[in-house]
Amino acid sequence: MSAPFHTSRFVEFSDTDMAGIMHFSAFFRYMEAAEHALLRSLGFSVYSEVGGEVVSFPRVAVSCEFHSPARCEDVLEIDVTVERVGTKSVTYRFAFSQHGRDVATGTMTSVCCRIPHGHPPVSIPIPAEIADKLRAMTSG
Amino acid sequence: MSAPFHTSRFVEFSDTDMAGIMHFSAFFRYMEAAEHALLRSLGFSVYSEVGGEVVSFPRVAVSCEFHSPARCEDVLEIDVTVERVGTKSVTYRFAFSQHGRDVATGTMTSVCCRIPHGHPPVSIPIPAEIADKLRAMTSG
Amino acid sequence: MSAPFHTSRFVEFSDTDMAGIMHFSAFFRYMEAAEHALLRSLGFSVYSEVGGEVVSFPRVAVSCEFHSPARCEDVLEIDVTVERVGTKSVTYRFAFSQHGRDVATGTMTSVCCRIPHGHPPVSIPIPAEIADKLRAMTSG
Amino acid sequence: MSAPFHTSRFVEFSDTDMAGIMHFSAFFRYMEAAEHALLRSLGFSVYSEVGGEVVSFPRVAVSCEFHSPARCEDVLEIDVTVERVGTKSVTYRFAFSQHGRDVATGTMTSVCCRIPHGHPPVSIPIPAEIADKLRAMTSG
Repeated sequence: MSAPFHTSRFVEFSDTDMAGIMHFSAFFRYMEAAEHALLRSLGFSVYSEVGGEVVSFPRVAVSCEFHSPARCEDVLEIDVTVERVGTKSVTYRFAFSQHGRDVATGTMTSVCCRIPHGHPPVSIPIPAEIADKLRAMTSG
Repeated sequence: MSAPFHTSRFVEFSDTDMAGIMHFSAFFRYMEAAEHALLRSLGFSVYSEVGGEVVSFPRVAVSCEFHSPARCEDVLEIDVTVERVGTKSVTYRFAFSQHGRDVATGTMTSVCCRIPHGHPPVSIPIPAEIADKLRAMTSG
Repeated sequence: MSAPFHTSRFVEFSDTDMAGIMHFSAFFRYMEAAEHALLRSLGFSVYSEVGGEVVSFPRVAVSCEFHSPARCEDVLEIDVTVERVGTKSVTYRFAFSQHGRDVATGTMTSVCCRIPHGHPPVSIPIPAEIADKLRAMTSG
Repeated sequence: MSAPFHTSRFVEFSDTDMAGIMHFSAFFRYMEAAEHALLRSLGFSVYSEVGGEVVSFPRVAVSCEFHSPARCEDVLEIDVTVERVGTKSVTYRFAFSQHGRDVATGTMTSVCCRIPHGHPPVSIPIPAEIADKLRAMTSG
């Protein structure tokens, strides 16, 4: 079984809300940043421009369960597991913790797409080189 | 069956990303705003302060599936259904569309909590008056 | 003297921070949304795509002074004045208030640009039709 | 003359907009994070809770001039200079650059406040220990 990809994140004041804790929507930005860090660790950029079109990874599904609050100046540990690699999509699992305390778990399914200007994204196969590297990270 | 609560939302430039579409995390802010509009429509504020403590509705779980992109200056129609009302939590379903086009669907489970400063939120029963009104909105 | 353009904005929970007030950076998103509403009122879109390039209004300078806090569920009144219209740029002034209470004042200078992909924005003259309408809104 | 405080920041996908560059409002979040990093380097937290009240640094004035665009995955270098330390306020200057290219310059004046719940912030003198350290960082 492969070890998951690991990163960490410092919770900033601007990510908090008037309840005194990190706003729940910020977890999704943190997930995306962790996904992109994982892709960079494989030598892949999170976007590219081919013929004037952006190639990126829009999401088809995301979820998050919140177990305990994150607060300003917490350093969140984020473990990323590659759960499944399909032809055009990849599903990640994210585990957020702080000092061993479970904070949240999330999932994200991203689809490799080219995004023509003014038109809907068009899904395309994940480039073979990156798909192979992602598959090597799955726990299966 | 009760009609769902309805609101709409204008997609702003600052909610887009370099792929030219609304960033996926913005859907969660829109869901929260719709949830709060629903609560206000029942005469309930999204927060209150009792004895120096904030009472609010942190989330325990959220999800979203994305079916087609939202773009700057789109007006998204948002239908909110109250799926389940528990003692301390309420689950909503959100359907985003534009001109009849399905854009996204999401769910959100929020827990009524008091949030003492510097301490974790403490779940409390949803006040009876609001729980009754929420239950009257469920489709069961 | 022309009357300024007026809009209003409801302060959302997600715009607050742990100090219990609206985060200062949100004022800039509100200013941008007000600027775009003003442009739409003149029949102009905030962006267009010409030959695969985005035409938009990046800023060269912004500022804001904060006089009293904005809070969740406040409705902020926003008066926008067109201060100066140059060949390629336009400067706006924004006054935020709530129930007559002065909340903040801001300025924003935006430059009409085409933004080739992967290259820096290139400033271009503001289209004559919109420049004329903006000049008609200046107080001079 | 003291050397300015230095930090850096990786531009994330979620900070970009449909013009393909970092949204201008993100510079203010980056400034705040740099300000807080400077305060931590002096042994001071960006907030504290005294008698159930938050002590924080709301802003009275901020500004930013934008000289060239920041893009996704850029690493921005941020130099922070303490320009002026008053009894209750401190003014910072921020210079953003990338590989020697001037990106933006900003200013921020923050006021030390206690923020009673449901009441406006009340300015208080900056604690002597931190004020002394900030003054030691000014270039005068």
